[in-house]
Amino acid sequence: MHLHPFAWTPAGTLLILDQTLLPTQERWREIHSLEALLEAFGSLRVRGAPALGITAAMGLVAVVRERAAAAPRAGALALVEEAAEAIALARPTAVNLRWAVDRMRRRAAGTAGEGDAIVAALRQEADAIWAEDQATCAAIAEHGQALMRPGIRVLTHCNTGALATGGIGTALGIVLRAGERGLDPEVWVDETRPLFQGSRLTAWELLRAGVRHTVLPDAAAAALLADGKVDLVLVGADRVARNGDVANKVGTLGVAALARHFGVPFYSVAPTSSFDPACPDGSRITIEHRDAAEVAAPSGVRVAPEGSPVYNPAFDVTPAALVTGYVTERGILHPPFED
Amino acid sequence: MHLHPFAWTPAGTLLILDQTLLPTQERWREIHSLEALLEAFGSLRVRGAPALGITAAMGLVAVVRERAAAAPRAGALALVEEAAEAIALARPTAVNLRWAVDRMRRRAAGTAGEGDAIVAALRQEADAIWAEDQATCAAIAEHGQALMRPGIRVLTHCNTGALATGGIGTALGIVLRAGERGLDPEVWVDETRPLFQGSRLTAWELLRAGVRHTVLPDAAAAALLADGKVDLVLVGADRVARNGDVANKVGTLGVAALARHFGVPFYSVAPTSSFDPACPDGSRITIEHRDAAEVAAPSGVRVAPEGSPVYNPAFDVTPAALVTGYVTERGILHPPFED
Repeated sequence: MHLHPFAWTPAGTLLILDQTLLPTQERWREIHSLEALLEAFGSLRVRGAPALGITAAMGLVAVVRERAAAAPRAGALALVEEAAEAIALARPTAVNLRWAVDRMRRRAAGTAGEGDAIVAALRQEADAIWAEDQATCAAIAEHGQALMRPGIRVLTHCNTGALATGGIGTALGIVLRAGERGLDPEVWVDETRPLFQGSRLTAWELLRAGVRHTVLPDAAAAALLADGKVDLVLVGADRVARNGDVANKVGTLGVAALARHFGVPFYSVAPTSSFDPACPDGSRITIEHRDAAEVAAPSGVRVAPEGSPVYNPAFDVTPAALVTGYVTERGILHPPFED
Repeated sequence: MHLHPFAWTPAGTLLILDQTLLPTQERWREIHSLEALLEAFGSLRVRGAPALGITAAMGLVAVVRERAAAAPRAGALALVEEAAEAIALARPTAVNLRWAVDRMRRRAAGTAGEGDAIVAALRQEADAIWAEDQATCAAIAEHGQALMRPGIRVLTHCNTGALATGGIGTALGIVLRAGERGLDPEVWVDETRPLFQGSRLTAWELLRAGVRHTVLPDAAAAALLADGKVDLVLVGADRVARNGDVANKVGTLGVAALARHFGVPFYSVAPTSSFDPACPDGSRITIEHRDAAEVAAPSGVRVAPEGSPVYNPAFDVTPAALVTGYVTERGILHPPFED
């Protein structure tokens, strides 16, 4: 049984595992207002493109259900629209928030009856989005086995495991599945500054799963690649443009360029829901810039002087030319992608 | 008047500015025992290849002077030998510790008379090493101006300023001198995990000097290079092999390979005392591996789970092929180097 980082409460509100407190504390947080949901997205208490889509859908239900169920049709649809728009804008780079709430909107609009029927349908739709992601993760992990071999040494960046999805994960899911099948993979875990998703989340998942791994400063990855200690790089994707450019956690571009320099294959791993056919190339992807304190005061302890400006983009864009292939639930793809 | 991170006390012991407490505290620490000196090296209270050489020499005097001055010649020389050997082994990668104590040993052996004469000569020799480094830094900064132009945007890694040397610095000294001359350079400062020498030390020096700068996570440098926001990379060197391979702070190799990928010139900046003609190439350089806690618990706050292994090399080796040139006190050099 894999970990899931979110759940419904019996009352129908949303529970999320607060990922900002891992690995030292496992604390669940109940979400019953739009404000709390947006705060959880903004503070990265839940993060990872697929998990954002699922919790956007579940959260939409959780925050509108009481008022919407008691409202006539028009009022319920208006509540859904209002919450959906705020959720879609919570983080600008991942396409999954928009994708999930648009799907929820369509389901609401296509459901006959009053508010109570609409809320019931939205709950079904959110469950469907979750179930589909779980199946998608399983399919990605299966297709990814083509890249695995006994004892393979994989470098990864950020967290793309169960904590980032509704299932076994994307990039990390491939390795976790290989571990379950006895291939004894070994994972080099970039700590992933500024928020340490590698140290805090990926290492925690691998430790739980009993998969061999080692945490390193992001800047130490080059030495590993140069020393021939990495067979394969697997990373996730927050958004894939039509030409194959990939927006992902800041640092991915550097890993991709270094992998190319040192002759190591580099795969982007993501569900096709992260592919954005409306986006022709990476230059059109809006990059979220985050608070300076994440860099200047890691874990709340100041390291940079007050008064020194900070550059803190959450994502970077890896050009398609540096990507060996795209592992998806439909197989390993190469651009141009079909619709 | 530039900052100096060390000084003699009136009594002849060594004072060092504790660089582990910057930028939030400026606290000086008096060194009057070999144990305290080795602890200061090991904890990086003083760091930077040239500063290590100077404080090795000054520290050798500080810790032997009382006993050696009262000893006959043979006893004094034995005290010097014993301390020198321990100091030389304090950190394995920088060549400057060995270089400085060997020079002090030769001066001791070549000085006539008893312990008091030897101690007086060693104090002169340490002062000479410091004064020479100050002149060397000035010459490096001067030669480096050939790479400067108004408004130039320089990416650097770790700290190579006054805090790392006995003068204006090496790589950062070039930029500081350009700032003094009104060229208004701009510096992109890699934070330099795991110990944040970029955030803590380089940003602090640039802020003091009024030079425009921005601190970034190491992994964000690739995006800057890709976006054409960097004109030049300047880094230091802890050791340069005869073929031009450079050992420097971990992360330097990645910056070098990315600079090459994105077509940005990359210069290693160091005094020729960091060049090791006895070392044929980078594969022969011993790389110091440091404590896991530096990665797992930055600033003492745990981010990686207990039980996750850590890879924490202090340095990496950049092959000569990735280095555009070597800025030294003798000019901008290219291998093979003359003796």
